[in-house]
Amino acid sequence: MAERLRSSVATRLSRYLRVARRAEKDGLASISSYEIAAYTGVNPTQVRRDLSAFGRFGKRGSGYRTDLLGERLRSILGADQTRAVVIVGAGRVGEALLGSQFADTQGLEVVAIFDIDPRKVGKTVGRLSVSPVSELERQVKRHGAEGGVIAVPERSAQEVADRLVGAGVRALVNYSEALLKVPSGVSVRTLDPAGELLSMLTQDV
Amino acid sequence: MAERLRSSVATRLSRYLRVARRAEKDGLASISSYEIAAYTGVNPTQVRRDLSAFGRFGKRGSGYRTDLLGERLRSILGADQTRAVVIVGAGRVGEALLGSQFADTQGLEVVAIFDIDPRKVGKTVGRLSVSPVSELERQVKRHGAEGGVIAVPERSAQEVADRLVGAGVRALVNYSEALLKVPSGVSVRTLDPAGELLSMLTQDV
Repeated sequence: MAERLRSSVATRLSRYLRVARRAEKDGLASISSYEIAAYTGVNPTQVRRDLSAFGRFGKRGSGYRTDLLGERLRSILGADQTRAVVIVGAGRVGEALLGSQFADTQGLEVVAIFDIDPRKVGKTVGRLSVSPVSELERQVKRHGAEGGVIAVPERSAQEVADRLVGAGVRALVNYSEALLKVPSGVSVRTLDPAGELLSMLTQDV
Repeated sequence: MAERLRSSVATRLSRYLRVARRAEKDGLASISSYEIAAYTGVNPTQVRRDLSAFGRFGKRGSGYRTDLLGERLRSILGADQTRAVVIVGAGRVGEALLGSQFADTQGLEVVAIFDIDPRKVGKTVGRLSVSPVSELERQVKRHGAEGGVIAVPERSAQEVADRLVGAGVRALVNYSEALLKVPSGVSVRTLDPAGELLSMLTQDV
């Protein structure tokens, strides 16, 4: 069972896991706190502090062993369990996600993709067939889906969020421009590439 | 001239700006710190603390005036200037971005989109014509582009990042799965929807 973590810690650990996974895939046996820092934008002292709280991942001075680090972070983050996720919207974003490593992320399984457009329903995207959005509640419940990706136009996003949350989803990634209101106990992250660029261009570096 | 802000502050302010813009667009005259908190995931005390540092935006107890808030945040974040941005990759993500409000964000102007595929070059996406990636350096310099969006496959992402940075770009949003190395003074944010979901599903809420 995953330990419950504070939001900011969980976000950093999930970034470290991303780096560990990547390094394992690239055949690197170890990685330093400086490298982790460079890849995540977290400062090296914070990296060392976070990781030291969860045990040893190698010999002092020789970096973190990527296999141990990956395994431990997966366990801490609960990524050693598989959590079912659905995508709503089989447009460009939904298709891009199912064609990317998102669909192969350890710890997540995309179990369904929905669209309202009858011309898209039944189409194969990745290894899934697009379901009509009328089946959303039934499929979310059947699979016990905990996460949802909202890849629909802004005008439909709140309704989709309400339906997902009503069916039991408690974490949403929102690709639309809409600002979503969700009940407490449910988390939303809205992707905002423009905001990211503006904030990077005005910050101290 | 934008003031220089710490990264974490700039990120929060850019979220508040997003909410203020949205509220203005929806015709709301004022917005409370609780509403801003609900929409941004920042706690209300932090919202009030951040905004009080930058002056008054309305009468005590009646919320923030959205017009004043928007104007002040735009000025603080330098979004009252226009910063040129390029997109590399005219695939599904690049197209989705140019078809979204990203292309109309105040403070940003998408000045070019590039692709390596000769079949895509010359195609119209949004109001731009796709340029060959061989023109990247020349166009970045000509427009003085400061920001870049990397929407290419993982295997090409580091090379694209190197070329953008070499041409003068200092803020990158990375849609690929690659972990990018950039020199100090350059910022990168890598979108990681899977990591976001995992971290939300394992955090305290």
